[in-house]
Amino acid sequence: MRQDCLICKSEGFNAQSRVVVTHNQRSILATLNIIETDLLKHNEASLSNYAWNLLSVKEGDEITISHPKTLESVNYIRSKIYGNQLSKHEIKSIIRDVVSGQLSDIHIAMFIAASGGSRLTNQEVLYLTQSMVETGQQIKWSSPLIVDKHCVGGLSGNRTTPIVVAIVAAYGLIMPKTSSRAITSPAGTADTMEVFTNVTHDISAIKKIIEKEQGCVTWGGAIGISPADDLIIRLARTINLDSVGQMVASILSKKIAVGSTHIVIDVPVGTTAKIRTLEEAEQLKILLSFIASQFDLKIKVVFTDGSQPVGRGIGPALEARDILDVLKNKKNAPVDLREHALALAGHLIDFCPKFKSHCGFEMAKTILERGEALKKFEAICIAQGGMREIPTAPFTYVIESKHAGLIRNIDNRHIATIAKLVGAPDAKSAGIELLVKLDSIVNKSQPLFKIHAETQGQLRYALDFFHQGHDIFQIEENM
Amino acid sequence: MRQDCLICKSEGFNAQSRVVVTHNQRSILATLNIIETDLLKHNEASLSNYAWNLLSVKEGDEITISHPKTLESVNYIRSKIYGNQLSKHEIKSIIRDVVSGQLSDIHIAMFIAASGGSRLTNQEVLYLTQSMVETGQQIKWSSPLIVDKHCVGGLSGNRTTPIVVAIVAAYGLIMPKTSSRAITSPAGTADTMEVFTNVTHDISAIKKIIEKEQGCVTWGGAIGISPADDLIIRLARTINLDSVGQMVASILSKKIAVGSTHIVIDVPVGTTAKIRTLEEAEQLKILLSFIASQFDLKIKVVFTDGSQPVGRGIGPALEARDILDVLKNKKNAPVDLREHALALAGHLIDFCPKFKSHCGFEMAKTILERGEALKKFEAICIAQGGMREIPTAPFTYVIESKHAGLIRNIDNRHIATIAKLVGAPDAKSAGIELLVKLDSIVNKSQPLFKIHAETQGQLRYALDFFHQGHDIFQIEENM
Repeated sequence: MRQDCLICKSEGFNAQSRVVVTHNQRSILATLNIIETDLLKHNEASLSNYAWNLLSVKEGDEITISHPKTLESVNYIRSKIYGNQLSKHEIKSIIRDVVSGQLSDIHIAMFIAASGGSRLTNQEVLYLTQSMVETGQQIKWSSPLIVDKHCVGGLSGNRTTPIVVAIVAAYGLIMPKTSSRAITSPAGTADTMEVFTNVTHDISAIKKIIEKEQGCVTWGGAIGISPADDLIIRLARTINLDSVGQMVASILSKKIAVGSTHIVIDVPVGTTAKIRTLEEAEQLKILLSFIASQFDLKIKVVFTDGSQPVGRGIGPALEARDILDVLKNKKNAPVDLREHALALAGHLIDFCPKFKSHCGFEMAKTILERGEALKKFEAICIAQGGMREIPTAPFTYVIESKHAGLIRNIDNRHIATIAKLVGAPDAKSAGIELLVKLDSIVNKSQPLFKIHAETQGQLRYALDFFHQGHDIFQIEENM
Repeated sequence: MRQDCLICKSEGFNAQSRVVVTHNQRSILATLNIIETDLLKHNEASLSNYAWNLLSVKEGDEITISHPKTLESVNYIRSKIYGNQLSKHEIKSIIRDVVSGQLSDIHIAMFIAASGGSRLTNQEVLYLTQSMVETGQQIKWSSPLIVDKHCVGGLSGNRTTPIVVAIVAAYGLIMPKTSSRAITSPAGTADTMEVFTNVTHDISAIKKIIEKEQGCVTWGGAIGISPADDLIIRLARTINLDSVGQMVASILSKKIAVGSTHIVIDVPVGTTAKIRTLEEAEQLKILLSFIASQFDLKIKVVFTDGSQPVGRGIGPALEARDILDVLKNKKNAPVDLREHALALAGHLIDFCPKFKSHCGFEMAKTILERGEALKKFEAICIAQGGMREIPTAPFTYVIESKHAGLIRNIDNRHIATIAKLVGAPDAKSAGIELLVKLDSIVNKSQPLFKIHAETQGQLRYALDFFHQGHDIFQIEENM
């Protein structure tokens, strides 16, 4: 608005004032920007595209701008900063105000920090999970067995989901998988799946896909499942923060909301994965199991090797390539990705009460080897809107080994940072292609990895970071 | 910038991207806004007034927009969220990036929340204080006795500083007082002093005023004293947060930076003051004394009655009126404000090695009663740029008692909220005028307080809040 407009003067609005903008029945809380030119007339306001859409306004519509009411939830956030335990009512109030856009990013950020680390009690995590479920859409199914999987992540390239869904759905179980986009990683499952097909479906579209193919891989954000979580994650990712309590609420609220009943949770453990030690993994498992039991969910938590990336590609298109190679049973398909996906699919098949042999892994392997998983995957992609070709990046740069030796360590965090700097996941074909594995012996000048970029600016930026001494491979010379 | 401009495309910039904007040697970190119209040409960017001033640009200047480097300080903030104790280097790095504008408000807010409550160790508070001093301007004096006072606040209307400075300077001590604007209250001392005279002076101007009058009351923000503190406070006030560690670093960093050697710290204690219990007050005193001793500061911490507001007015102009009444020895001058100011001035006079009688209070009283304090105050105002008349608000509204009874409790927090809602401190003449004191007996329909407003919108907004059941006076009917 104009600084000298009568509304600003009479109401005492100023630059950065928090104001309520209302149109018909819809309201949003916004931060006022002030202009000193005549770009706007008196009593005129300009809105961001974001606000424009939320309020469903057209040019020339009349909107109301007023002072916001004092929010009780702000007091609860302050209380949490002071270290108090919050009640169900207090947490629900915070989450509701997050979802309705009443709380500013500053206050949400404070809530995230105040409840970060292990500062939420089990009871608070339960309340947070309930509140996240209740403030979003929920899907109901008539079947008593709806399987799901989740990977706690932090491990680049660990893109098992599309393979698991294909196998499990081919077996006949119902797996309506909604996945997230990247949080702190260079690609989320939804980003990778989007390389193959459309991932934005509403609940009725998902029900139709499931009716036809038993499985799907769609983007959870599109159906308003646990919307608070998406908003919280958006801020947490700016500081690469993954706190146990928030992680558990985030994972389980989405599973509960989509109506899952039986879930396998994959926790990669390794020095550069999200979970670094078995101790942390146990802590997470206990909290996951406690919260799941409160909602009558059957969960199986499995710890897996998180010492190095899974597969070769890091970034949506490069990971998509690995997935297709596994589904096609190609000889050069990444063995670790294949084994990992089979193990998870096996655990899910084991959940089925009709399955008596107790070796889901063998069943999963048979389905994959017979090509039934590939067929199912193609059918799912078609049901989701058609299957696309995987794109290739126009710029690549190969990093070679400076000396011969044994690869002792691979830094997942530096891999993720470089892949993000080069533009993943927004730049679909950008990322890193790993050319060697842990414990390999390499020669001097042997190619170690290849950076893929869509623009030269992004390639330069990623290389800048790499050349600042942020090595990916630790190579031991004296063998 | 335009969404379709080549720079955005080649660098991968998008809405809400964090970017570095550079002009000549100056850089700021900014959040990119994207437009879809032709308001800007390709390769053109528009800046906020804030950025415009920080970068000293003129229309048509060439600026550079680039990706920001990864900030180490972001890792330290995350470490604090996880509950780790930070080193001097880590805290200094955070504070430096706060001051240089490298850290986003989101990350500063997270730091505030993660170190809120009592989550900073004594050592961390020391580092925080040092870092705040070192990243700002510092004033040096040749005299070994530079007195200062600070009030921890939370108590509305407790505006003793101008009176104390006048008395102490009239006695002959040097008191270069820099005050803050309101943090979470409806008026800071600088806001109130600004009703009388100019408070924006640079260091050389302050030195000249002191040379002439021994005392001054200016706005600390104008001289870049502890600039990190101002930035942190700006965010903390959005959630009314006052954490012990941050409070101590905030108070002492400013005193150290202005070169004070002997300081009286007034801690009002009361259920609705900033410090609610003697236990909290003791905790604060211990931390203040520890940090002060590390810097060789002499401090005296005094606990005072924080059960009700001091004086009658709440808000800059209304408080200014109380101050003038005390300095003029008017019969109706608020007794509590007068007594409180005399006590603090007495403690400061007691610091003087030449003063042997050990009753500074009596000396202060004599100076006030003889009119020497008023004369000195007028001289200080003239030295600061001339003395102004106190303005009066155009809109007032009287709240009356709903029934007869005894005033049992006065809610400072609700007073502060209403005074802020009505526009204080930005609206100078807005605020609350209290008409009764704690323990008074009131009749039905007796006026309790008067709300002063500069606009009707603000008056309405404050009344809305009041009528939502946020009473100020608790009146006991059965006597």
